[in-house]
Amino acid sequence: MKVGIIGLGLIGGSMAIDLKRRGFAEEVYGVEAEPVNAAAAEKIGLVDRIVTFDECVDLSDIIVIAVPVGTAVRMLPQILDKFEKIENCRKVVIDVCSTKEQLTKVAYYHPMRAHYVASHPMAGTEYSGPWAAMPGLFDGRACIICNSEESNPRAVKVVEDLYSALNMRAIYMNSSNHDVHTAYVSHISHVTSFALALTVLDKEKDEKHIFDLASGGFSSTVRLAKSNADMWVPILSQNRDNVLHAVDTYIEKMKAFRDAIADYDEAEIRKLIESANSIKRIIR
Amino acid sequence: MKVGIIGLGLIGGSMAIDLKRRGFAEEVYGVEAEPVNAAAAEKIGLVDRIVTFDECVDLSDIIVIAVPVGTAVRMLPQILDKFEKIENCRKVVIDVCSTKEQLTKVAYYHPMRAHYVASHPMAGTEYSGPWAAMPGLFDGRACIICNSEESNPRAVKVVEDLYSALNMRAIYMNSSNHDVHTAYVSHISHVTSFALALTVLDKEKDEKHIFDLASGGFSSTVRLAKSNADMWVPILSQNRDNVLHAVDTYIEKMKAFRDAIADYDEAEIRKLIESANSIKRIIR
Repeated sequence: MKVGIIGLGLIGGSMAIDLKRRGFAEEVYGVEAEPVNAAAAEKIGLVDRIVTFDECVDLSDIIVIAVPVGTAVRMLPQILDKFEKIENCRKVVIDVCSTKEQLTKVAYYHPMRAHYVASHPMAGTEYSGPWAAMPGLFDGRACIICNSEESNPRAVKVVEDLYSALNMRAIYMNSSNHDVHTAYVSHISHVTSFALALTVLDKEKDEKHIFDLASGGFSSTVRLAKSNADMWVPILSQNRDNVLHAVDTYIEKMKAFRDAIADYDEAEIRKLIESANSIKRIIR
Repeated sequence: MKVGIIGLGLIGGSMAIDLKRRGFAEEVYGVEAEPVNAAAAEKIGLVDRIVTFDECVDLSDIIVIAVPVGTAVRMLPQILDKFEKIENCRKVVIDVCSTKEQLTKVAYYHPMRAHYVASHPMAGTEYSGPWAAMPGLFDGRACIICNSEESNPRAVKVVEDLYSALNMRAIYMNSSNHDVHTAYVSHISHVTSFALALTVLDKEKDEKHIFDLASGGFSSTVRLAKSNADMWVPILSQNRDNVLHAVDTYIEKMKAFRDAIADYDEAEIRKLIESANSIKRIIR
């Protein structure tokens, strides 16, 4: 199988590594808009060849859109348009973005819709760029496949095989449920980390050495604040309504803590903490 | 040196392990109010002997108060009172609590004040109880010693030796600065984690399988929400003013994100994320 990956960042680059070394891809082509990243990806050997967008669509059996979701929404119809011009097209295109509703909407009425499979491999780190790519990133994690009934079964099968080569387990879901779920278990934790970083960085203006005492707990809570704006701006914007619901509930919870602390209401603080402790049931 | 540890939880228990195995303590006595924990501590072999509070003060050269800070504030004067009745007392008492201002205030006018050294070993996990104790917990971490000019130099020296045996580096600070710093780099990250857990647990009432998609990022952000109420209620209450400042700034930052997302203001979302990214300078 010839695999074309558009966007050689953390996700695209890591897929390139494992699809090649595990034999799923006989050839991996890469498209990368940023010249420095393209040169780095070639030097590291992430892909067999850097190609243009057009060459990538021409040469590949399966095309992976691994760019920020704002760009992906514009790119997906362009690729489907190209598929339309190919006789007996058997090519498949997938995306790997963190929001799914706009992507499935933009493709919905396209005559080549069935060649697209919406997927979201739930893996990553707070790092970005081809330098962040690593083998084994996806092993054992979940991959969500959305609205698979809108794709043709052969295309779904190819994509299942691809994720199976990455050792991922598939979960099937509609795109609107996907976006609700990710707002709560992924997007909001990024916003809370960003806000925490901003809070402490603000304080650092008066208290130069405030980070000397930063502990492991602080580091783990603030880790996601290193995440890349190019990726996260369109996610938060495209998943606006769900993220706002989550953020509003979250601000209410923060205010409940705030008021209990302000009132020295130790019984209420205890109640809030003990309720929060139920997370033990989920996170071991 | 004979060491008495009051409170055999994560911190007290971990100190017991390393002070004994590294030869700083020839004998370790433990006081534990909770019978199950006392029996467990004895069974695990954390201490040489479980003793009463009075025996602990009588037998030990150095007494470590490792109980929640609400209890510590009541216990410290009782121990200093006992020191007063001992002729030529050379005993030392320390605490290991996460807030320092109330403790140093409550001891300030005590005639035996110089025998107390206020310290805060900056180490821990989100687990608690004697089962959570582990060797090496403190290695390489910072230990803050507060208001050391109020302690006698011999007592400070003993405590420095103790923390040196735990492989900690000492940082000296006054207790009020300590409490500001810990509000920002420790206490608030606990509150934000608790609030995140409550937000997602609330949503789980409607969306049963929401945690199926929880990723590594979510786990690391919410990890501290497993922390124990017995420890955290008095910390948040004693450090009320500093924690409120931090929480209020934090809520403002969350609202800034909220408004930018609500307005689809991608330029503003980008500005906020890129400012937060400066945390890379601090957290590698």
